[in-house]
Amino acid sequence: MNSHLRKDILSSNWVIVSNDREFRPNEYRAKIKCPFCPGNEKETPPAICELKDLKGWYIRVVPNKYPALTLENKNFQESEGLNKKFYVKGHHEVIIEDRNHFKKINEIKHLDKVLEIYALRMKELYSLKNVKYVMLFRNYGQNAGASLIHPHSQIISMPLLPLRVSDELKHFKTYHLKNKKCAMCDILSDEKKFKKRIIFENSHFVAFAPFASRFNFEIWVSPVNHEPDFYKETEFKKLSEALKNVFSKLHYSIKDLSYNMIIHTAPSGEKKFHWHIEILPKIAMPAGFEWGSGFYINSLSPERISEILNKGIKFRY
Amino acid sequence: MNSHLRKDILSSNWVIVSNDREFRPNEYRAKIKCPFCPGNEKETPPAICELKDLKGWYIRVVPNKYPALTLENKNFQESEGLNKKFYVKGHHEVIIEDRNHFKKINEIKHLDKVLEIYALRMKELYSLKNVKYVMLFRNYGQNAGASLIHPHSQIISMPLLPLRVSDELKHFKTYHLKNKKCAMCDILSDEKKFKKRIIFENSHFVAFAPFASRFNFEIWVSPVNHEPDFYKETEFKKLSEALKNVFSKLHYSIKDLSYNMIIHTAPSGEKKFHWHIEILPKIAMPAGFEWGSGFYINSLSPERISEILNKGIKFRY
Repeated sequence: MNSHLRKDILSSNWVIVSNDREFRPNEYRAKIKCPFCPGNEKETPPAICELKDLKGWYIRVVPNKYPALTLENKNFQESEGLNKKFYVKGHHEVIIEDRNHFKKINEIKHLDKVLEIYALRMKELYSLKNVKYVMLFRNYGQNAGASLIHPHSQIISMPLLPLRVSDELKHFKTYHLKNKKCAMCDILSDEKKFKKRIIFENSHFVAFAPFASRFNFEIWVSPVNHEPDFYKETEFKKLSEALKNVFSKLHYSIKDLSYNMIIHTAPSGEKKFHWHIEILPKIAMPAGFEWGSGFYINSLSPERISEILNKGIKFRY
Repeated sequence: MNSHLRKDILSSNWVIVSNDREFRPNEYRAKIKCPFCPGNEKETPPAICELKDLKGWYIRVVPNKYPALTLENKNFQESEGLNKKFYVKGHHEVIIEDRNHFKKINEIKHLDKVLEIYALRMKELYSLKNVKYVMLFRNYGQNAGASLIHPHSQIISMPLLPLRVSDELKHFKTYHLKNKKCAMCDILSDEKKFKKRIIFENSHFVAFAPFASRFNFEIWVSPVNHEPDFYKETEFKKLSEALKNVFSKLHYSIKDLSYNMIIHTAPSGEKKFHWHIEILPKIAMPAGFEWGSGFYINSLSPERISEILNKGIKFRY
């Protein structure tokens, strides 16, 4: 059975049922031959693009072998009583970010080039027909749902706007209607004014623990100037500097850090959106209260997080 | 700093910041004296109610020592620039369900009595002023965010409707407006007709893997007859039978099962709602895609889950 979408009748939940992914290798559960290490290139589908130096490739983009969405589907619906399955097309790629199996993101020397490749692939996928949204994310560590250790990110294109993105866009637009300004621009100027939650800043970027952090050590990185799209005119060297600073601090304070990192970029053509990166460490697991309510309980305020990270305190958990 | 609520400007997210909870004991991380075992009653605040036999209590309800919401707050708001903190009142109780530290839920002999106590506390909390919603949930196992092994559930009262519940209520109402019927009543009659996802049924309850399951092995248990409120006229013996069957199957098929269980009951006075229990096993972790999109990827269809559980297949992961 091919991947397809299902919508819950009792909620706004959409689910991608992707049986193939049951069989993907998981390095945290069994010994495997890493498909992303140099020499094992045959374990992945052929590369979409590669950056090379004298030793071979150092960044490599490949189609995901166990895709959540594929181009194989025809667009059609299948009914069963009240329920419908939606077969849709999508892309799912993997960006292998370094040759070295164990590198942390802040240890990747050419991180600015990795970010440029993120932007390049994003731009390319947005240019294709029927692509409504392109999501780029990075899972690191077992608690964050990663299945492979080798440094990599994933990029998925979708023919519909995901719930979280349409919710965000709605909030940007409502705020703009009321205040004639961008919400993120105002948030950044507040953060710079109060200086209670800033983790790092340079001429182009601010990294801060957001006021309503859902997770322990949640951090957002945002360009100072208003820009909806990640892949346009981004200062990759400056962004690389910001990310290296933030992740050095996180890895220093938190032993065995696991995290999800997500690039929130505007849906195609939307101007009332300010792109940013959300870093979501997974220390405490979301539990029954979170799943039942849609609310979050956070046992550490972002003000305390900023203190822990900026003073270089080792966090015990 | 007392627990308080924060709302994110860029999304519909609400967060309870509860610094006290940083210090609660975690049995999965360090050896502790179990505060819920007989003999250690002084480790918890005094009991709200107890059921006893000749050997002492066998069910015990206590206030949570590390509450997410408390009655100590006065209702007030505090501003900092764009942001607001909302100090609100709420209850947070723990239901200790058995004397035995290691009992699984399906091994609790008096499970029907546990369910009756759930209902009793829920009814009591709903009768109090300013309570808009009462949520009962059970976290079991480390991957589900539990911090203690001893069998227990938690109950939290809130002065506002949580996002997930208001979303659910909206969907029940929209469906009713369109079809003049309850969505869950229709779902149950579909499930009984197609018989592809049913895990268990008796005269009063149906347990099934929902069509749009978010998680591997997600199961819902719902009364056959339309009833908005969990705490009214529930057949606890029949419900206990259904839960014991479902959890025996889950524990048989899944080694080291972790799960969240949530009772979805109607907000006070709402009739267009059909109560049900959601069981959410935590096998694969939600990752970057899920957090970024608000969508879910499920690598196992509910049809396959029903086969695995009903044929008694050991699931390898």
